Amino acid sequence: MTTQTPANSAAVSPREAAALLLANDDILIITHKNPDGDTLGSGFALYAALAQKGKRAAVVCSGELPKKYARLLAGYIADEAASAAILKSPGYVVTVDTASTSLIGLEYLELGKNADLCIDHHATNSRYAKNTLVDAKKASCSEIILAVLDEMGAELTEYIAECIYTGISTDTGCFKFRNTTAGCHRDAARMIERGIDMAEINRIMFEQKSRARIELERRALAEMQFYLGDQVAVITITQDMIGRAGATDSDIEGLTSLPRSIEGVEVGVTMRETKTERCKVSVRTLHIDAAKICERFGGGGHFGAAGFECTGEFANIKHLLLQEIETQLAASC
Amino acid sequence: MTTQTPANSAAVSPREAAALLLANDDILIITHKNPDGDTLGSGFALYAALAQKGKRAAVVCSGELPKKYARLLAGYIADEAASAAILKSPGYVVTVDTASTSLIGLEYLELGKNADLCIDHHATNSRYAKNTLVDAKKASCSEIILAVLDEMGAELTEYIAECIYTGISTDTGCFKFRNTTAGCHRDAARMIERGIDMAEINRIMFEQKSRARIELERRALAEMQFYLGDQVAVITITQDMIGRAGATDSDIEGLTSLPRSIEGVEVGVTMRETKTERCKVSVRTLHIDAAKICERFGGGGHFGAAGFECTGEFANIKHLLLQEIETQLAASC
Repeated sequence: MTTQTPANSAAVSPREAAALLLANDDILIITHKNPDGDTLGSGFALYAALAQKGKRAAVVCSGELPKKYARLLAGYIADEAASAAILKSPGYVVTVDTASTSLIGLEYLELGKNADLCIDHHATNSRYAKNTLVDAKKASCSEIILAVLDEMGAELTEYIAECIYTGISTDTGCFKFRNTTAGCHRDAARMIERGIDMAEINRIMFEQKSRARIELERRALAEMQFYLGDQVAVITITQDMIGRAGATDSDIEGLTSLPRSIEGVEVGVTMRETKTERCKVSVRTLHIDAAKICERFGGGGHFGAAGFECTGEFANIKHLLLQEIETQLAASC
Repeated sequence: MTTQTPANSAAVSPREAAALLLANDDILIITHKNPDGDTLGSGFALYAALAQKGKRAAVVCSGELPKKYARLLAGYIADEAASAAILKSPGYVVTVDTASTSLIGLEYLELGKNADLCIDHHATNSRYAKNTLVDAKKASCSEIILAVLDEMGAELTEYIAECIYTGISTDTGCFKFRNTTAGCHRDAARMIERGIDMAEINRIMFEQKSRARIELERRALAEMQFYLGDQVAVITITQDMIGRAGATDSDIEGLTSLPRSIEGVEVGVTMRETKTERCKVSVRTLHIDAAKICERFGGGGHFGAAGFECTGEFANIKHLLLQEIETQLAASC
C-alpha cells in the first residue's frame, strides 16, 4: 500500500476486481462511516464470498452499527483473533460504497485512504484508491459487488443474498425512488430465489419506527403549518422537542420527507434547531428546484431535495424562505 | 352469456384466454368495486391491448375511481358512444381481479355474474364465469394480464407498462410484502424498460397522504397507549376524531399498520367506532396468530392481520382483547 494520487488510480472491471481479490489474502474491507444498508450489505457480502474462497478477511466500520442491521452482523462469523491480525497487518485493503476519504471515518482513515481497491457507485468518486471499480449507473454498490461475486464464481448463499438485497432495497427506498433500474429488479429477483426472508428484511428497514421517532412525529404534526395556499408545509423541530421525544439524528432525518408527502403540497420544509442554536433547513420539492432555493441561503443539493444551515430567528428565516419559494413557484407557472 | 354454475367453469391458460379474447369483439371489462391499483391496472391494460388489436372494448367499475388513479384513467381514450353501445349489448364480458360475484358491485352485477371470462389471482375464486384463468401464485392480477397480453402479441406501450406496473406495485406494497415473488421483480424490470415514470407513480401510490389522513394520524398518535410491557400498542379512532379530521374510510385503513410499526411492538391494535356505534377492531401481529386472537371475538383473518366487529364499551372490549393477547404472547414464549 503506497499513497496514491487520483491520477494513479486504475479503473478496473468487475472481472479484474475479482482477479485482484482472489490473488490476495488477509483482506480488510472498510465500509463508510455512518453506515447504511448498502455499504454494510456490500462489505458483508464480499466478506462471505472471500471466506467461501478460503480467504482470510474482515469487515470494519468507523462508529457504531445501527441496530437495524443486526441480521447482517449475525451472519458475519469472523474469527476475532484473525480479524485483529488482519487489521494490524492487512494484505489487501478494499473500501466499499465510499466515494471519498472523508467518508471513511477517523478510525480507519489511514488504512482506507491508501486502499488497494475501491468498489463504489458514486459518480463523484475521487479515485483515491490504487484500483477503482465505479459504476455510477447502478443504484447501489451492492449490485456492483454482485457482479464481482459472479466473476469470482462465488455461490450465492442465503446470507450473501440477504446482504445484496438489503443494499439494493435500502438505496432505492424499496424500489420506490427514481434511481431504481430494471437491473435492480432483476438482481432482487435472483436474491429472492435464494430464499431470503424479504418481508422481514423490509419490515425492519422500512416499516419499523422507534418510539422516539413516533413521538417526534406526533409533536411535529401538531405544529405543522401551511402557507401560500397550502402549497407549502413547514414543520419545526426544536431542541426541546427532540429532548422530550428522546430522538436521535436518524429519527429526525426520517421526518424531512413528511411535509412534502401531503397531498397538494409542492414544497415541504423542515426547520430544525441544532445543538449550537443554529437552524438547519431541509427543503423537499415536487416541481421546482430545491437546490436553487437553498443556494440563496448558502446551501445546495439536488432538484427535489436540498438544504442549508444558518443563524437567526426561526420566524425571520421562514419569512425569507417563503418569499424565495413564492418567487420560484410563480416562475414555474 | 348464460348463467353458469361453478362446476361448468372451464379453467383456461393465458394462451387460451388470449385466443378467446381475439375471437370476440365488443368486449366489456368489469373491475371489482372499491377499485384498487391491481384491478384498474388489469382492466385498463387489457383494454389498451384489445384496442391495439382493432377490438372495440370498454372498462367499467361500480362506484367512483379514487383520485390517485387519475393517471390510468387519463390514458383510457374510450369513445363514449361506443362504450355505451358495448355496455348495452356486450359481445363478451370479462371480469378482472374479482374473486366472487359479491365483489362486482350492484351496478354491473347482472353482467358480471354471467361473465364469459374471469382473470384473477385469488385462490378463493368462486369460478362464477364461463371460463376462468386463475393463478393464485401471482401477487397481482396484473401479472396474469401481462401473460395474456404476451400471448396476444400485444406491444407493451408505455401506457400498458404503467398499468401493469401500478397493479404489481400496489398489490405488493411496492415490492415490500411477503407475497412479492421473483416474477414480480422480473415483470417490473420489463415495465421500467418501457420508459414509465416509476418514481412519480410510486410517489402517488405510496408517499402521498391526504391532509385528513395526516390530521387523523396526529390525533391517533396523541391518544396511542401501550400495554403488556410495551409489547402492545393501541390506537382508538372515534367518530368525533374522524369527523374533525374529515377522514374517509381509506384514510382510516392506512392507519391500521401504524401501531405495529413501532419498534418493540409485537401486537398493534386499532379500535374504531363505526357510524352505527359498533366497534371495529384490527389486530396486526409479528410472531403470534392474529386470526386466532380475533376468532375468540367472532372475527378472523390471516396470521399477521385479522379483525372483528362487536358492540360494547371500548374499555371493556380492550380489556378482554388484552387478556387474550397476553395469553397468546405467553403461549408463544
